[in-house]
Amino acid sequence: MAVNLSAPDPASLLAVPGVELGFAAAGIRKANRRDLMLMRLAPGAVVAGVFTQNSFAAAPVQICRAHLAASATCRALVVNAGNANCGTGEAGLRNARRTCDAVARLLDCAPAEVLPFSTGVILEHLPVERIEQALPACIGTLGPDRWGDAAEAIMTTDTVSKGASCRVSVGGREVTVTGIAKGVGMLQPDMATMLAFVATDADVAPAILGHLAKEVADGSFNRVTVDGDTSTNDSFVLIATGQTPGASVSAIDSEAYVALRDAVLRVAVSLAQSIARDGEGATKFITVEVQGAREEGEALRVARSIANSPLVKTAFFASDPNLGRLLMAVGNAGIADLDVGRVNLWLGDVQVIEQGGRAAAYGEEDGARVMRADEITVHVHLGRGVAATTVWTCDFSYDYVKINAEYRT
Amino acid sequence: MAVNLSAPDPASLLAVPGVELGFAAAGIRKANRRDLMLMRLAPGAVVAGVFTQNSFAAAPVQICRAHLAASATCRALVVNAGNANCGTGEAGLRNARRTCDAVARLLDCAPAEVLPFSTGVILEHLPVERIEQALPACIGTLGPDRWGDAAEAIMTTDTVSKGASCRVSVGGREVTVTGIAKGVGMLQPDMATMLAFVATDADVAPAILGHLAKEVADGSFNRVTVDGDTSTNDSFVLIATGQTPGASVSAIDSEAYVALRDAVLRVAVSLAQSIARDGEGATKFITVEVQGAREEGEALRVARSIANSPLVKTAFFASDPNLGRLLMAVGNAGIADLDVGRVNLWLGDVQVIEQGGRAAAYGEEDGARVMRADEITVHVHLGRGVAATTVWTCDFSYDYVKINAEYRT
Repeated sequence: MAVNLSAPDPASLLAVPGVELGFAAAGIRKANRRDLMLMRLAPGAVVAGVFTQNSFAAAPVQICRAHLAASATCRALVVNAGNANCGTGEAGLRNARRTCDAVARLLDCAPAEVLPFSTGVILEHLPVERIEQALPACIGTLGPDRWGDAAEAIMTTDTVSKGASCRVSVGGREVTVTGIAKGVGMLQPDMATMLAFVATDADVAPAILGHLAKEVADGSFNRVTVDGDTSTNDSFVLIATGQTPGASVSAIDSEAYVALRDAVLRVAVSLAQSIARDGEGATKFITVEVQGAREEGEALRVARSIANSPLVKTAFFASDPNLGRLLMAVGNAGIADLDVGRVNLWLGDVQVIEQGGRAAAYGEEDGARVMRADEITVHVHLGRGVAATTVWTCDFSYDYVKINAEYRT
Repeated sequence: MAVNLSAPDPASLLAVPGVELGFAAAGIRKANRRDLMLMRLAPGAVVAGVFTQNSFAAAPVQICRAHLAASATCRALVVNAGNANCGTGEAGLRNARRTCDAVARLLDCAPAEVLPFSTGVILEHLPVERIEQALPACIGTLGPDRWGDAAEAIMTTDTVSKGASCRVSVGGREVTVTGIAKGVGMLQPDMATMLAFVATDADVAPAILGHLAKEVADGSFNRVTVDGDTSTNDSFVLIATGQTPGASVSAIDSEAYVALRDAVLRVAVSLAQSIARDGEGATKFITVEVQGAREEGEALRVARSIANSPLVKTAFFASDPNLGRLLMAVGNAGIADLDVGRVNLWLGDVQVIEQGGRAAAYGEEDGARVMRADEITVHVHLGRGVAATTVWTCDFSYDYVKINAEYRT
């Protein structure tokens, strides 16, 4: 069902010096399916993370936060699919720690240098013994060119694996940025949900990496929505191995920072868009651009009000240029003093709302033409200021209901 | 598709002294369908209204607000189905005023004593001539016992008409409270959307009536949700004809006020629940009760996060006791300092979440038993305070997508 998205050619996912990847079938939820992934980092790698805002943060998310606070260094990430280890109380925290302990023993590092991630069913206990048993086999497969395999091993109900890669010059040295992600939006928290791992061999100071991770998340993963449901396990981790020492980033907004940021953002946006393209039941990929807001948060509220409206999304599914629903969604964004007479809205290249009402030149057939495409842009200008944002989403089809109603049957 | 809901027996909708109702087929959107309703009020009636918070408030909503501000008295309400007169700019305001002018001429009152309401497609101009032409016939049918016909005339995609009635003693005199509503939730703004009219023959001072209308709306219509989309035309109007003079309400929270409020609330809650029961594609009626919140707004955020989550709603449709989705929705309500270890949750009489995790005694079969019913209560206790609220909603089925994707085809 993914919209104009296929799995990345494994050869296109460039190795990042200092990163090795391995995988195994641990039988966590299904037999004979790769569901365990290990990422080993060379000594000296630094890591920053951005995690879910859901109050019920899963046990591995809590342990990640604790380990990132306790240790300046990171030697490994361990990821399981099939079980979210969320809503599992103290036992869940113990199981996440036990996973880290097992990895630390095998890789000869401290447990706090291991970050755990889980994705899958909520409220069931993690079968940690199966992970412990599968770890040696997982380590046996470690290699620098396994990004494609790693992307497959972290999938849950994703229909295609997701990865992206690019090269960029930082401080006069060429470095690589490669990332993988899983998730079909925020719309399936019981196979929860979005995980993304992006690595570079640039040399980035830890405080700067944290700033970069936040900035990239805001410009990529935080601008994807499928139904507004935020999962309990969302995690984005940015890794800098520092294996190309001249490629140093030592100040925010320096030339090197900007170059690296743009490269990481390019990879992250590609991954984020992949998530919307593979949204459950998606038949269309929708880009919502909002301009003319007073500040970016306001633009984001309008964009999300459009992107999350089931009425707008079913209209896209039906290829129905149902203008009233777009107008309703803009008006429903909670901007108290919005002057609707200054609002203009385009569907692709066709203006449908002009100064708050139906555009004089608009003809239904123009809207229908745009709606028939499988990639559609909605462009709103609020006429209030200069702030802007873009959000990516998908439509809302019968298959969304089918997938989510029948998932456990 | 409505869940345990049938049209009210016309005889059960009690006449309210001072209120007459009429209807006609004006051909606004479809031929030979009653789509125009007029409510004539005896001199001395006072009226209060609560209207949509959507920035794109429809032209009739804007005129209602202006007329309520300009005139202390109200002699008529005129309602058309089939066209929302929203997003129609100056022409829309002119057409709404023209409708009021026509009614005022025929009933010999001031235009500001007429309140206009429209429901239907957004962004199309109102065929005001057809309304003008049909008004004499509409007036010819005026009578006190036509509440059932009136309820039918304001329907759009409602599958059954909605009305409720009760008697109550106010100041030692028995009065009647009768109301009608249309809408299938907030989920179809292009047939937009919720209209509710409730009348009583009690004698209520205008300032007190405004307070009563707000209090009743907060306890009834503002606690229904289908998908979180707020329409451009939502209106709730409360009418007190004062035809039973001894039944006077002259102070907020007086005994007479409380008696009348409880009666009006009973009618309004019945109408509000009817809206959720007739939600588009609904197969189940869901009650979400939240207790133990610090303040009511917090309880409402949690209740709406559950009631609006497409994942929770598809699980109800599938009768799947998918606990993780409920936990996700509670955690997603934006309560920054929520201690998840104090959260308990019941599905019907079955505790599924205990201190933030899966209840020890919970068995999947217990949850499945509750989920098979067509009326289900979710009860959440946050363990933070004493505030509480209740929200009513419906599930999310294939037919929701079908109705909203195929509506205009």
